[in-house]
Amino acid sequence: MKYKAFHKLSYGLYVIATEFEGKKAGYIGNTAFQVTSSPAQIAISCHKENATIDGILKSKTFSISVLKKESETSLIGEFGFMSSNDIDKFRNIETITAQSGAPIVLNSSIAWFDCKVVNSVDTGSHILIIGEVLDSDIISEDEPLTYDYYREKYKMLAPKNAPTYVESEKLKKEVISENKVQEEPVSKVEAKSELSTHTCTICGFQYNEEEGDPSMGIAPGTPFAELPEDYKCPICNAGKDYFTEG
Amino acid sequence: MKYKAFHKLSYGLYVIATEFEGKKAGYIGNTAFQVTSSPAQIAISCHKENATIDGILKSKTFSISVLKKESETSLIGEFGFMSSNDIDKFRNIETITAQSGAPIVLNSSIAWFDCKVVNSVDTGSHILIIGEVLDSDIISEDEPLTYDYYREKYKMLAPKNAPTYVESEKLKKEVISENKVQEEPVSKVEAKSELSTHTCTICGFQYNEEEGDPSMGIAPGTPFAELPEDYKCPICNAGKDYFTEG
Repeated sequence: MKYKAFHKLSYGLYVIATEFEGKKAGYIGNTAFQVTSSPAQIAISCHKENATIDGILKSKTFSISVLKKESETSLIGEFGFMSSNDIDKFRNIETITAQSGAPIVLNSSIAWFDCKVVNSVDTGSHILIIGEVLDSDIISEDEPLTYDYYREKYKMLAPKNAPTYVESEKLKKEVISENKVQEEPVSKVEAKSELSTHTCTICGFQYNEEEGDPSMGIAPGTPFAELPEDYKCPICNAGKDYFTEG
Repeated sequence: MKYKAFHKLSYGLYVIATEFEGKKAGYIGNTAFQVTSSPAQIAISCHKENATIDGILKSKTFSISVLKKESETSLIGEFGFMSSNDIDKFRNIETITAQSGAPIVLNSSIAWFDCKVVNSVDTGSHILIIGEVLDSDIISEDEPLTYDYYREKYKMLAPKNAPTYVESEKLKKEVISENKVQEEPVSKVEAKSELSTHTCTICGFQYNEEEGDPSMGIAPGTPFAELPEDYKCPICNAGKDYFTEG
């Protein structure tokens, strides 16, 4: 089994949102795909521990907002890596109410779908939910955000609840094993660069000293130790203490 | 409902293949999505009239080959627009046999998955099939083919059996209605260009006179009427007679 093969599957990134008894909930997922055309139905895969699933199954509705290529990092951080049980993700978010009653997130979105749950399948850790599309619209002609672009830009792992989550240890083993095949000791490869990488333990974002963090005004070549004390992860807002080297 | 919103969902393109009682079958689909990570499971959506579904449900196995960005057009034409009941799609195809027994298509592929069917859901016109991944590998580091790139390159509609198929009339109505909003009569827009487009009625490929068909050695600006008599659709090999203007 080659776990990196899973990275060759193509996905977009979407905000899935719902509302039940006045409580809004939402998360960012990469699994939203059309399963039939007539009637139009879309399937999503949602982790059972995700706070949003409860609202979706009870309200029998959800909305899908298609994220644009350059989406707000705070939106990705909060909807992708935090729980609707812990914070009100919608406090600074612009929404409209769909025909079904679900809130539709407009920030960083280029199109949306309003869905009514028609079926659900227990797949183990996740529930596959099939929704009939009641309505849809296009907000802008910006390019959609693809999972591939997101992974490349933020050097990130999937959150633990994502269907595409692969334990970093499994990926590391593959990389080490590949290096062995090339008969180049891993220690030698690592020794080539004096600049290192620091990983956010909350969301997996990697601060690469060579690249810096231009989105936060940090110049390429800035060592992690020299980052301002109030530096925060551009994805999930975690402080420097949450980063580990490597 | 805005049908063009469905074009904002991101997909890759895959060859799904199977074998039952010595008969190989396969098709090209855009729906292959990881639905859980542990165990790794992938869902596909297959039209009930697709010849491959019978083999998948009987053998309880299928393979997924991830197509590369510049894939062979004959492979897309045969696996995407023809039926395994009518032709032997595998006659010129290089395959290996997966652990499950399914054939894995290697042509134009960058990675593959070998899957065992663990569940299936009737969604109306299609069946959603969930497979547990038994094995996977990477063949090359080429970029994957995305549905977006494919649509842009070939100016194509989805085949009739695809979950993403939208009747061209529905899309046309949206375009006409958008032009009306801009208060620019459609006839006026069309009159601006003397060069027209001809559409393959088999697969939906559009021959645009302005662009020509460089893949077949046809220069930009070549009117359809002046194409060689043996010109064939670069996707599905249909002859000129199968094209209609518009």
